[in-house]
Formats: sequence, structure tokens, C-alpha cells
Amino acid sequence: MPPQPAPPRTGLWLVGARGGVATTAAVGCCALQQGLIGSTGLVTELPPLAAAGLRDWGQFVLGGCEIRAGELPQAALDAGLPPALVAACGDELRAIDQRIVPGVVHNSGSAVDQLAAGDAARRFDTPRAAVDAIKHDLDRFRESERLERVIVAVASSTEPPTDATRLPDSWEELEPLLATPHDCPLRASSLYAIAALESGCGFVNFTPSLGASCAAIDQLAIQVGACHAGRDGKTGETLLKTTLAPMFASRNLEVMSWVGHNILGNADGRILSSQENKQSKLGCKDAALDALLGREPGDGPQSLVSIEYVASLGERKTAWNHVHFRGFMGVEMTLQVTWQGHDSALAAPLVLDLARLLDASSARGERGAVGALACFFKNPVGAPLEGHAEQFAALLKHYAGRHSAEASDH
Amino acid sequence: MPPQPAPPRTGLWLVGARGGVATTAAVGCCALQQGLIGSTGLVTELPPLAAAGLRDWGQFVLGGCEIRAGELPQAALDAGLPPALVAACGDELRAIDQRIVPGVVHNSGSAVDQLAAGDAARRFDTPRAAVDAIKHDLDRFRESERLERVIVAVASSTEPPTDATRLPDSWEELEPLLATPHDCPLRASSLYAIAALESGCGFVNFTPSLGASCAAIDQLAIQVGACHAGRDGKTGETLLKTTLAPMFASRNLEVMSWVGHNILGNADGRILSSQENKQSKLGCKDAALDALLGREPGDGPQSLVSIEYVASLGERKTAWNHVHFRGFMGVEMTLQVTWQGHDSALAAPLVLDLARLLDASSARGERGAVGALACFFKNPVGAPLEGHAEQFAALLKHYAGRHSAEASDH
Amino acid sequence: MPPQPAPPRTGLWLVGARGGVATTAAVGCCALQQGLIGSTGLVTELPPLAAAGLRDWGQFVLGGCEIRAGELPQAALDAGLPPALVAACGDELRAIDQRIVPGVVHNSGSAVDQLAAGDAARRFDTPRAAVDAIKHDLDRFRESERLERVIVAVASSTEPPTDATRLPDSWEELEPLLATPHDCPLRASSLYAIAALESGCGFVNFTPSLGASCAAIDQLAIQVGACHAGRDGKTGETLLKTTLAPMFASRNLEVMSWVGHNILGNADGRILSSQENKQSKLGCKDAALDALLGREPGDGPQSLVSIEYVASLGERKTAWNHVHFRGFMGVEMTLQVTWQGHDSALAAPLVLDLARLLDASSARGERGAVGALACFFKNPVGAPLEGHAEQFAALLKHYAGRHSAEASDH
Amino acid sequence: MPPQPAPPRTGLWLVGARGGVATTAAVGCCALQQGLIGSTGLVTELPPLAAAGLRDWGQFVLGGCEIRAGELPQAALDAGLPPALVAACGDELRAIDQRIVPGVVHNSGSAVDQLAAGDAARRFDTPRAAVDAIKHDLDRFRESERLERVIVAVASSTEPPTDATRLPDSWEELEPLLATPHDCPLRASSLYAIAALESGCGFVNFTPSLGASCAAIDQLAIQVGACHAGRDGKTGETLLKTTLAPMFASRNLEVMSWVGHNILGNADGRILSSQENKQSKLGCKDAALDALLGREPGDGPQSLVSIEYVASLGERKTAWNHVHFRGFMGVEMTLQVTWQGHDSALAAPLVLDLARLLDASSARGERGAVGALACFFKNPVGAPLEGHAEQFAALLKHYAGRHSAEASDH
Ligand SMILES: NC(=O)c1ccc[n+]([C@@H]2O[C@H](COP(=O)([O-])OP(=O)(O)OC[C@H]3O[C@@H](n4cnc5c(N)ncnc54)[C@H](O)[C@@H]3O)[C@@H](O)[C@H]2O)c1
Ligand SMILES: NC(=O)c1ccc[n+]([C@@H]2O[C@H](COP(=O)([O-])OP(=O)(O)OC[C@H]3O[C@@H](n4cnc5c(N)ncnc54)[C@H](O)[C@@H]3O)[C@@H](O)[C@H]2O)c1
Ligand SMILES: NC(=O)c1ccc[n+]([C@@H]2O[C@H](COP(=O)([O-])OP(=O)(O)OC[C@H]3O[C@@H](n4cnc5c(N)ncnc54)[C@H](O)[C@@H]3O)[C@@H](O)[C@H]2O)c1
Ligand SMILES: NC(=O)c1ccc[n+]([C@@H]2O[C@H](COP(=O)([O-])OP(=O)(O)OC[C@H]3O[C@@H](n4cnc5c(N)ncnc54)[C@H](O)[C@@H]3O)[C@@H](O)[C@H]2O)c1
Ligand code: NA
Ligand code: NA
Repeated sequence: MPPQPAPPRTGLWLVGARGGVATTAAVGCCALQQGLIGSTGLVTELPPLAAAGLRDWGQFVLGGCEIRAGELPQAALDAGLPPALVAACGDELRAIDQRIVPGVVHNSGSAVDQLAAGDAARRFDTPRAAVDAIKHDLDRFRESERLERVIVAVASSTEPPTDATRLPDSWEELEPLLATPHDCPLRASSLYAIAALESGCGFVNFTPSLGASCAAIDQLAIQVGACHAGRDGKTGETLLKTTLAPMFASRNLEVMSWVGHNILGNADGRILSSQENKQSKLGCKDAALDALLGREPGDGPQSLVSIEYVASLGERKTAWNHVHFRGFMGVEMTLQVTWQGHDSALAAPLVLDLARLLDASSARGERGAVGALACFFKNPVGAPLEGHAEQFAALLKHYAGRHSAEASDH
Repeated sequence: MPPQPAPPRTGLWLVGARGGVATTAAVGCCALQQGLIGSTGLVTELPPLAAAGLRDWGQFVLGGCEIRAGELPQAALDAGLPPALVAACGDELRAIDQRIVPGVVHNSGSAVDQLAAGDAARRFDTPRAAVDAIKHDLDRFRESERLERVIVAVASSTEPPTDATRLPDSWEELEPLLATPHDCPLRASSLYAIAALESGCGFVNFTPSLGASCAAIDQLAIQVGACHAGRDGKTGETLLKTTLAPMFASRNLEVMSWVGHNILGNADGRILSSQENKQSKLGCKDAALDALLGREPGDGPQSLVSIEYVASLGERKTAWNHVHFRGFMGVEMTLQVTWQGHDSALAAPLVLDLARLLDASSARGERGAVGALACFFKNPVGAPLEGHAEQFAALLKHYAGRHSAEASDH
Repeated sequence: MPPQPAPPRTGLWLVGARGGVATTAAVGCCALQQGLIGSTGLVTELPPLAAAGLRDWGQFVLGGCEIRAGELPQAALDAGLPPALVAACGDELRAIDQRIVPGVVHNSGSAVDQLAAGDAARRFDTPRAAVDAIKHDLDRFRESERLERVIVAVASSTEPPTDATRLPDSWEELEPLLATPHDCPLRASSLYAIAALESGCGFVNFTPSLGASCAAIDQLAIQVGACHAGRDGKTGETLLKTTLAPMFASRNLEVMSWVGHNILGNADGRILSSQENKQSKLGCKDAALDALLGREPGDGPQSLVSIEYVASLGERKTAWNHVHFRGFMGVEMTLQVTWQGHDSALAAPLVLDLARLLDASSARGERGAVGALACFFKNPVGAPLEGHAEQFAALLKHYAGRHSAEASDH
Repeated sequence: MPPQPAPPRTGLWLVGARGGVATTAAVGCCALQQGLIGSTGLVTELPPLAAAGLRDWGQFVLGGCEIRAGELPQAALDAGLPPALVAACGDELRAIDQRIVPGVVHNSGSAVDQLAAGDAARRFDTPRAAVDAIKHDLDRFRESERLERVIVAVASSTEPPTDATRLPDSWEELEPLLATPHDCPLRASSLYAIAALESGCGFVNFTPSLGASCAAIDQLAIQVGACHAGRDGKTGETLLKTTLAPMFASRNLEVMSWVGHNILGNADGRILSSQENKQSKLGCKDAALDALLGREPGDGPQSLVSIEYVASLGERKTAWNHVHFRGFMGVEMTLQVTWQGHDSALAAPLVLDLARLLDASSARGERGAVGALACFFKNPVGAPLEGHAEQFAALLKHYAGRHSAEASDH
């Protein structure tokens, strides 16, 4: 009997490959491949999606880029992952490490500039030169690993906000700016996006940075026939907000103020605590509330979100939310929520899920922003602002062909 | 020009008419009729339902029954409602008071027996005699107020649990038991249900008591062509649970334990604190969790719900919830929620909404349990167990002909 | 029988007389004089102090100054005080209003400048001129009301921090600077202090502003034989901190971080939300923690305090505190506290208590900072940094001659 | 040079030696002896006590008794202690295991009866026989280990409440009852106490069981010249209550209700969840509140404490407290506290501290209940009910000769 041909494979290229999220994703993927951990935390392992013909974990090959020196097994221990698990995945982690190349720093802000002190980062005179270098990395990855498809996932440090008013609306106008650094406000996350799409890869932006979240880059995706998803993984406070706000709306309760205070102590928290990058995170988090509450834009509640770096907490992000609302006859009431989550353990499985789902979208030939992935993001592209339950129903419908009514009986 | 004919009217018959929920509903309805309060807290005033042709507040006439002496304006002040509002509604409240008749006590448990010490309560030798007396009250109400339709809403004190194993499954078998008290485990809430349905009224059970929530009484409703909804208004902890549990399910997070501790200080709280009635409330609240989490029955988390009477809190019910869950790689996390609600202010508008919606269902000729009203109840009859968002989408679809995708852009 | 001579009287001069704290103090004092409210919230009504011979409420006469127009009864309603109580105190409040004169604005920061737009504020070319004008007001108050003693209590809006490095250590050096505005960094709160002390009044600084909290002004107090107390009334988060931190210290638990997030919606909250004034509040709140935890200065936990203005909350200040600590064998644990207080209702009785106690200190001839009043302040002058229980024991000992062991059996 | 004589040693005899608290104490003591852990969590390592001449950790020898089979290293892993630490202490833990003898079950309630199924428990016909057997164990321990003194610490499972009305007030009357089982309501914890005291050992009761907390056994202690301390280690909610309640009292705030809900998942939690034993814990916890608030007995707030077993939490005890109080002018406010503690990590160091301190008391010849140790207990014997700060000051004064004023400047 002739040997079984090897199953086709998809590459997952992690940008920020030794960061908390990417490292946890890498260890998790290895552990899944070896059957060391269960499916908890993985959306694509829920019954309707598990039956939807997505690629197996064994068909994924990881690689990526970083701007800091280091080694994955040590990064995994630093991220607080269980030493026994890290040890069991040691060989495969070291293999992934071999596939991590120097990342690109461009317009990334002072906090990232400080991280990128050593040789592990590359800088280029023009955005175009950076894009071409990244494309070169992706091509090499695809060829050397004999990958059918590649998904690029940005999980690098949050960049400062990009001035969107300076961006043209069409790719035709944006593309030439890549040659003239002073006219081009794009930061590294968007250069990764452009490189991925121009190379025909799927692109995921797990960060609050701009990435592909502008009309011109979306147009590029549609033109080249690639797909993308983003922006900013929804893992804590916003997950709660998109879940709870529709409840208030469904009861016609008038939310007067919604205050969120977030404390965390990992590297992402340190970057976010630098004032310029903080704005980027806060901006993303406020956007949806009025819509979720069924209020006219600007007519909704006072909304405040603050984020502070508290070293002792490490990955244990704690979010306190205080909602002050009015009911029948004007009676005032409050809801308080305290979420004590593990940042990377919440985020990493979503990166793996997104790789699997965007791989399926790529295989089906979808192009542009995949709105059906909205439930994964704080600031979804390609989808209207909806509650989490509706977003989740849309996900199941898109990938498992299920209607919301059926969704609940898995 | 000939005089405009008076618009047709619907009666709302409140059982437990001077209790916290019913009194607040009565004051609220008067205040709405006079334009003294806004629509906050009323589900049927949300844009899609406000446009669905439901009857106006001015078309509703309130009446009901009680087992305690008292007067509505004073009951309203005791319930902590704003004195100025109560005063402004004084005439109409006194008119409603004229339409409150003595209630029926039957098998209602010792806590209710103590309430019903004076003449305001009636007792009968057989359930059938009680049913007939209630039907007589309803007929008089309909005729004297020239009502096109009548909705009966039970908002009386929680009864002890009814032993459902002693109930036959068909109306044919249950009906004869009404004549033989010792064979009939039904309590007053179910007698109100039978009387309402036999009289062709719509029936709402806002309490955890049995009411119409058994196969035989549902069969009666279908046979006579009347409709009903229940059981146990969803106003606090369970509203949160049906909202939050699907979020955990959608992320494949493993909830290990869910603890709820409720403290409140109103009359309902005092009744609930009596051990036999407590069981009824706790029973209702636990049922849905496994289903909402997508777990096999019995395979879900450890779930504990406790309720304590804390006099100083009055209507201010405070619910603390602690959810302990596991994510990717088994990492443990927690969510804590503190809900500080005003019990009657949350409940009363739902009673009014239910009257309006069940009136529309009656007009359309719906029969049996109206599952589309599930979002109002802790333990809905006639509907599968679903998350709150899905229940709310079903409500809009049923009454406003809207699909969930449209639901969010009101 | 000859007529009983009128009992001697003490004046309480409120700076910021129509603000939330002062207005609540004024209504409270009137209500106490008329027996309309009980003693809850008043420290000086605790048994040991009630028996300590302090002046009765009836012996106090209120007056003060303001920079905003307005009338006390309306200010009281705006502060959310019960309308019936305000009405019952109407005559006396109007009498107090007659004794409110225009306040002095000097170096008070832009937020206060905006408040002081109308004629109700006075400005002077030199600090000395302002001081003399204030002294004139105090003299008139004393004479026209035939007061034996006068206590000045600053409850005006928080000023920006004063640059203490520019202040000389002795009164001899500071006094001449009052004539030369450019060399004198003092703000209005300190000019009120100087005027009060030079006039022989007792002085209370209930605000985080500098007031008398510097060596040179303390020296003035000692020289003239007047006494003072401050700084920044301890009503919420710091009350908890000075209570809870010693508990951690007593168990040798290692607090790693202490995060406080405060939200409130009154006028004080609006001023504090202006960045320059915020610093003053935050500065005061952080100082004591290391000492309370028994740690070397700077060697204590990471400490973060944030304050946000949330309009819907009004006087209802909500403080969330998150304490992350380590115990035996390095095990990590947390304590979370949510305090939902009514700002002015907590503060106002303390202002009255301080007037009563400082009046007694004045009568006894105490001079300089009265450290025994430390338990009332976030940043006490004249006392070592101690836990709240120790401060309270010191209070009882000083004014009631009691030792801590007896303190608990009142 | 002649050899240095070995320093004198004290034995610590742990009753319930393989339970969570005792095992953690054993590992902790070994780790301290080897310098593997720091002093965090140990009260006796605070500067004033560290300088008070207490015996070194190296001078303590551990032994004890148990009713369950098992081995200490495994028990330590089961209690969630760090494997590396347990391994490092392996030899010494095995040595302690050699010194653990079968415990005595007597009147211990059904939950304990179930634990004691194997041979590891001994039962006796009369209390006196049990006492004599325990004394024999203690004598052997003292002799074989050449111990100068021995402290017995009861850390065994909570027993059901003992009917104190059946106990005579004098030792003279109680002693004869030991011979007649039916007349003697004492349970094992009190038999351990009697045996310890008759053998001249110091006795610590870390549990809510009766132990030595009755007049007759205290009299025995005084007669034989031994000392004892108890009852029920104060590690969580009561620590907070004794800290926070005096704060409310110091401000004359009227606490109207204080609700505590505790969830935990260790073996102690399982025992406490059995109804008869629950009473014992709840009884202890409620006692002090009125006194701490300065209220007449019975005139204080409504107080509710509930404890539930939640398996997933293990040693992580979570306590939610809700305090509803009134301030000036009757304004209502709330305080909520969530304590997330590690049960054994909080308790074990206190057992070690108590051994050290009671050893010093024994050395000084103290007799009867040592009230100065009140700060360690929920229901202290030999001391008036006081706030935690005052109790702690009393501790420092007794053992370090310090006055409260000095206490804070360590
Ligand atoms: N729950 C979550 O953890 C979560 C949720 C949503 C979004 N995110 C976002 O994901 C991103 C990563 O979070 P994290 O916790 O892993 O942060 P991290 O700081 O641990 O990791 C980021 C990594 O990116 C690297 N990096 C920075 N700039 C780069 C560049 N230009 N090219 C290549 N590598 C670069 C850094 O060296 C670092 O190793 C952040 O933007 C964060 O806001 C995280
Ligand atoms: N948020 C809420 O308030 C809420 C939510 C869900 C369910 N409920 C349920 O609604 C019911 C009413 O709550 P409430 O707060 O108004 O209680 P309540 O005690 O204030 O009022 C109940 C009234 O029913 C009367 N009553 C008792 N038995 C009766 C009988 N057989 N016939 C006629 N009247 C009778 C009592 O005298 C009382 O006036 C309770 O069962 C409660 O559990 C309330
Ligand atoms: N719990 C509490 O409310 C609390 C606790 C501690 C400290 N404080 C402090 O007490 C002060 C007053 O608080 P509030 O809530 O009453 O604020 P508020 O804003 O309601 O009142 C302050 C009043 O001071 C007046 N004012 C400002 N500058 C003045 C000046 N130079 N001379 C005379 N009047 C002047 C303002 O016009 C205003 O009416 C603030 O500094 C606040 O931080 C309040
Ligand atoms: N934070 C805390 O952990 C804390 C605080 C205060 C009080 N306590 C009390 O300390 C005690 C021990 O708590 P734990 O968590 O270690 O419980 P545990 O159940 O883990 O340990 C108790 C041990 O005692 C043993 N035992 C039972 N009866 C015995 C007997 N008659 N003789 C000898 N051994 C016996 C059991 O077999 C068990 O091993 C409990 O009473 C608990 O309420 C604990
Ligand atoms: Na109610
Ligand atoms: Na204030």
C-alpha cells in the first residue's frame, strides 16, 4: 500500500513572537498537538465548530518575528506557564525559536523603541522597504516549511494611535506614500498587514494598533483576494461590556455612567501605562457602548476607562466595573463587576482559534474584512456593532452554518 | 360630528394587589396614564415594540384581589415610592382600591396563613368552589368595567413548592380532583390560573409558585383557547446569570462553581426566609445553569443560591455572585458581580409589559404557554432554556416581526 | 429671681460656606439645635466625649464666607438634603446666610477662578491686604454676635498644591513675604489660616490645601497662643486605609500593591478632576501607607490612587480598593473593598466635631497643632503617622482623659 | 574546648497533625529551620517580638496525633504547598511522621466519625481513660525528645457545639464526670485540653470546638500552674470584622446589618458544611459584633454569617461582607469587602506563633487563660472583647513590654 501523503499545512506567523500572548499560543499549540491539554478556552473546539471541518492543530506550523532577544522556553516560564508543560514542549518550542526572525520597528513609539535596543530589531528608511523585507520573511517561511497557506497574526506591543485623518481612503492613494516616510503615518502593525496581504496571507490584528483597520488597506485585501480580521482581542472588560450592555438595553434601563478600572502587571501593561500608548487602548474600548445600549451616538452614558500598571499582578488582570443606572420611576441602581482574569491564558487560545478560522476563510476564498469574526474583537472591522451573543451567533452561522436558535443546544 | 367611540379596554387583575410588586405596578400605570413618568424600565416602550400596535396604557383598567387589609396609597408609601408621585395618583389609586376584592387562601403555607388573619381572605372547602368564586370576581370585573379582555397576573406571596409528582398530566384527570381537597395538591396560585383560563382570561404567573406551570393546566388553556405566561419574574440574579453564562459557554470556559448570595428586606424577603417557601425560590433559580453553559444536565458546575432576609435593606435587593472558572491550560480565574437593585422597581414594569403583550397574544388568538415571553421569567414555560439575548430576540421576532440582526439597531 | 445669664457662645466661621460640606454642617447644626436629628455620625456624641464638658450645639453660632452667589436653603437642596429638614431649618439658615460675607480668592487656581466669576469674591494686591480683610470679617463676627471664641474652618474648594520648597521655616521670615506677592507662594487657604491665628481664633483645615500645615504658620500659632488642626478630612478611602493597613502589619503580611479608584459627582469632584487640583488630593492620600504598614519609607507597596468625576453619582462617592498581599510561604492573596459613602454626610459632622473640640482646646489654652485630632484627617499635622485605632485612642485620652483599655467599654 | 551544650527544646504537639493547618505549620517550621522561607506571615517575627527573647525555630520539635492514615509529605502536596518546598523538607517531615500517634475520637460528631474509619483513631470507654492515654503520649514525647516544655495545639476538625449548660463551673465538680460518660458532655478537644494541662503542658485551641474554654478547665489550669489560649484562630472574616467594626464605632456610624458569606473548599469546609458542625462555627463568629460596635448586647445590627462548601476553591476561602450603615441625618451607606485568602497559609504561621508565645508564657510561670493572646482568636478566652488594634497592642505590651504608642514605630 502506498504511503499516506502528508496532510497539507498552514503556517501561523506570530508578530511579537516572544511576547506573553504569542508565547502562550505557541506552548498551547504544541501542547494540543501532543495531547497534553484539553480544549478548554478554545472557541473552535465547541461542538458546532469542532464539526465544521477546520484544520487540525497538527496541521499548523508556527514561526514569527520579534524585536527582543530571548528564547521561547524561557519566555514561557517568564509568562508564568507551568514548568512541566513548558518542559514537555521544549523540543518543539526550540524548533519554533529557529523560525523566529528579527521584527521591524517603524514609527512604533518610544516604549517599543526602548524594547528594541539590541540587534533583534530591523529598521528601514521607507515603509515600502520594510514591507518588502517582511514579505521576504513570509515567502521563506512558506517555502521552507512547504505551507499551503499562511496566516500572519500581530500580537506585538500596542503602538501609539495612528492619525487616521492623514490616511487616504483608497489603496491607490496610500500605496505611493509607502515610499515617502514623512507623508506616511503608518506604523509597523500596518506594514505587517500590507506585507501579509500583498503576499496573499490571511492577516489577524490582535492588538489595538491600526493594522489593517482602514479603508485603504481593506481595499488592498479585496483586490488581492486575501482576508483579514481585527482589531484588539476581546478578553476581559469589553467581553463583559458587550455581554452586559445589551441586557440593560433589553430592559430599557437607562445606564447613566459606566466606569471601568483595569490593573495588570505584565509587559503589555507596562507599555500601556506609557501615556501615548494608553490612548490607543482607551480609544478602542469606549467606542461601542452607546450602540450596545441602543442610544444615539453621544447620547449614551458617561463612560470612563482607566488602565494602570500594577507590577505585583503580573498576568492577572483585574477589571472593576461600576455601572450606575436608572429604572422604572427613575429609581437608581448599580451593578459592580470584578473580573480576575489571566491575560495571556484568555488571549492565546483566541489567536489559535483565529488562525484556524481565517485559514478556513482563506480556503473558501473570502476577501476583505471577515465580519463574522467580530466576537473575537473589541473593535471589530467589517461588522456592525452588536452584542456578544449576536456576534457569537453570527460566528456559528458563518462557519458552522447554524442559526442562532440551534446554537444553544450544543 | 358624531362622538368618537371610547377605545376598547383591557382589564389587568392583580393577585396580591397591595403587595410591593402590584402596588408599584398600579402607581406606575397611573403615572404613565397621566404622563408623569417616562418609559424607562418598560420593555414594551423599546422602539420595535412601541411600534408593534400594543394597547396604550390608557386602555388598561386595574383591579385585583388581596388577603390583607389596607389601602393602595399607603401601601405605595410603605413600598418606598416617591410621596409626590403617590399623591398625584391618589384619586386613581383609590378607584383601583374599590376594585380590589378579598383573595383566596388555599394550601398557601403557614407564612401566608399568618398574613391572612383578618377578613380580607376567603377560604373554601374545595378547590372547585374557590375556582368558581374567583371566576365570579373576574366576570363582575369584566362586566362592570366593560372590558374587552382581561389579564390575570399573580403577584402574590411565594407559596411552598407543590408536589408535582402527585399531579396528573391531563386536564381530564386533574379537573375531577378539584372536588376532592385531599387528593388535590394544588395551591391558590394554580386555582387563580384555572379560574382565569376557564373564564377566557390571559394568565401571567410572576411568582415562583406553580400557577399554570404543569401539563394539565396548559392543556386546559389550549382547549379553551386562552394563553398564559410564567414563571417567576426575572429581575436580578437570574437576569445576570442568563446573560453571563452564555458568555462563558461561547468561550469554552469551564465554570467550576457559581455561588449566589441574595439579601433583601421587603415582605417577599420575609416570606422567602421561611424555610418551606425558600425551597420554591431556590428550586427555580438553579434549573437553567447547566443548559446555559452548554453542559450535560448534572455535568455542570457546583451551583449554590442562598437568600436571606435583611430588614434594613427593604426593597434594595443585593445579590453577590462568585463564578470560579478555568480557561486555557487549566488556568483558574474568577468573576464577581454585585447587583444592587430595587426589587419592585425592577419587577413592576415587567408586570405591565406582560399585561400588554399577553393582551396582544390573546387578541391574536394564541393558546397555551407563550414561549416568546421567556425573557421575562426565571423558569419560562413553553420555551427551551436559552440565554437572555436569544430570548429577547425571540420576543422581538414574535411581537414586532423582527429578526435578531435588526434587533440591535433600534 | 434674677434672669439666668445667657451661656457663653462660640462662633464657627465656615470658609466655602455654601459648598456641600459647609451647607450640610449648617443644616446639621440647626437640626441638632432644634432636636430634629439624632447624634449618629457625630464623634463628640460618643459617650466618653459627650461626658467631657464640650460646649452644647446651642452655644454655637455659624457664619462664614463664600465666593459664589446663592442662598443656603437652595444650596442645601442642591446637596441632596431632605427637603423637609431644610424647610424646618429655613429661618435659621437664612439667618446664617446674613452672616456670610464675600470670600477671598488668591492664587487659588483656574478651577476656583471660574467659580469666582461674580461679585461674591474679593481679590487683593498683596497677601497681607487679604489677611487684614479677613481679620476684619472675623472681628465683626465676634463682636456683633458677642462670641467668646471663634473657630475658622476651611471647607472651600481644593487648591492646587503649594510649592513648599519656596516657604521659609520660620514665621519671622514668612511674615514679610506677605507684602510681596511674587515672592509669596501662599494660596487663600493659608491666608485664612494666618488671619484666623493672628485674630486668636482656632483654625481647622478640612481640605487638602496647605492651610496652616507648614512650620512657619505653626510657629505663628504657638507665638500667638492659638491652636489649629488639619489637613484634609478623613471620610472614605483613607479612613479605610488607616484602619486596614495596621491589620496587615499586625500579621506581618506583605502588601505588594494597594490600588484605590474613587468616583464621585459633586462640585468637589469636578474641581478635583481638573488636573492641577487632582495632584493635591493624590499627594495627601499616598503619604501614610508605608508608615502604617511598618515599612521603611519608599520600601512599601506600589500605591496608586485615582479620582474621577462621574456626574451621575452626585454626593455618592464610591471607592474601590484592591490590596494584593503575600502571606506565609509567599502565598498570594487579595482584599477588595467597595465603599459607597455620601460625601457630605460623612464630612459635615466632623466639621462640627472639630469646632467643638478645637473650642475646648482653645479654652484650655493649647497652642500650635493639636495632634490629638489626628483621627479626623488624612494628613494630620502635629502627630506621628498612626493607625486609626491608635489615633482614636489618642483623641479619647486627650479630651476625655481615657486610656485605650477603657475606650472600648462605652 | 568543651562541646557547646545543646540548647533546650520545646515540643509542639499537633492534634489533627495531617490536616491542612497542622501540615502547613509542619512544613513551615521545617522550612524556617532550614532558612528556606522568610518571616512573612509570622507575628513573632515582627521587630518588637523578634527582639523579645522567644525561642528560635530550631528549638522546636514537632509531633502529634491524627485519626486518619496518611503521610505528611503527601498531605502537604494535597494541601497545595509548593512541591519543591515539600521535597526540600522531606527528611524532616518523615521524622515528624514517626512522632504522630493515633488520635482520640470521643463524642466528635458524625462527620469526624466518618473520617476516623480506619485504625488510626482510638476510642475509650470513659473520658478519663482517654485523658490518661493522651497524657501517656505526651509523656513519651517529652522524654524521648528530651523536651524542656511541651505545647499542645488542637488543630483538628471542628466538633459540634458542646452543651455548656451541662458543665459545672468548678474543676472539682467536673473531674468526677470524666469517669461517667453519660454525664459528661465533653468532646475530644476538651479531653486533649485536660490531658495537656494535667501533664503541665501549655494548651492552644485553634478550633471553634470547646477545648479549654470553660470555667472548670480554666480552674484546672490555674491549679496546676499551666497556661492556655484559644478559641478559634482568627484568619479571615473575623479578622476584618474586629478591624472594621471599631472604625464604625469611632465615627458613631450606626451599623444596621452586617452580612458575611463565606465559601471554601478544603476538608475543614466539608466538615463545616455538615449542619451540626456549622453551628459551632457560626456561633463563634457572631459573638463579638455588638461589643465591637459599642452597642448594648442585643441592641446591635442584624448579623448573618453563612458558610458554604465550594469544592473548586480548595484552600482559597473567599468571604464577602456587606455592611449597611447610617450616618449623619440618617443617610444610608454601604461597605462591601471581599477577602480572598488561603486558609492554611493564614492559619499555620499563627499556630507556630502561638507555640512560641505560649512557650514563653509557660517559662514565665503564667497560669490559666493568657488574655494577651486574644488577637489570635475569634472568640478569645481570658480577655474582654476588643478591637483587633487594641488586642495587638496588648500582645506587644505583654510580650515585648511595649506601649501602644511605641507599637507603630517598628
Ligand atoms: N488579554 C490579552 O493579553 C490581550 C487582549 C487583547 C489584546 N492584547 C494585545 O496583544 C498585544 C500583545 O500583548 P502581550 O501581553 O503579549 O504583550 P507583550 O508585551 O508580552 O508582547 C509583545 C511582544 O511584541 C514584541 N514587539 C513589539 N513591537 C514589535 C514589532 N514591531 N515587531 C515584532 N515584535 C514586536 C515585544 O518585544 C514583545 O515581546 C498587545 O497589543 C495587547 O494589547 C492582549
Ligand atoms: N423583583 C421582584 O420583586 C420579584 C421578582 C420575581 C418574582 N417576584 C415574586 O412576586 C411575588 C410578589 O412579590 P412582592 O415583593 O410584591 O411581595 P409582597 O409580599 O410585597 O406582596 C405579595 C402580596 O400578596 C398577597 N397575597 C398573598 N397570598 C395571596 C393570595 N392567596 N391571594 C391574594 N393575595 C395574596 C400578600 O398579602 C401581599 O400583599 C413574590 O412571589 C415574589 O417572589 C418578585
Ligand atoms: N467627604 C468630603 O466631602 C470631604 C472629605 C475631605 C475633604 N473634603 C474637602 O472639603 C472641601 C469642600 O468640599 P465640598 O464637597 O464642600 O466642595 P464644594 O465644591 O461643594 O464646596 C466648596 C465651596 O468653597 C467655595 N470656595 C472656593 N474657594 C473659596 C475661597 N477662596 N473662599 C471662600 N469660598 C471658596 C466654593 O465656591 C464652594 O461653594 C474640599 O477641599 C474637599 O476636598 C471633603
Ligand atoms: N484559616 C484556617 O484554616 C482556620 C482558621 C481558624 C480555625 N481553623 C480551624 O482549625 C481546624 C483545622 O482546620 P484544617 O483546615 O486543618 O482542617 P482539616 O480538616 O484539614 O484537618 C483537621 C484534621 O484533624 C483530624 N482530626 C479530626 N478529629 C481528630 C481528633 N479527634 N484527634 C486527632 N485528629 C483529628 C482530621 O483527620 C484532619 O486531618 C478546624 O477546626 C478549623 O475550623 C482553621
Ligand atoms: Na418584590
Ligand atoms: Na464633599
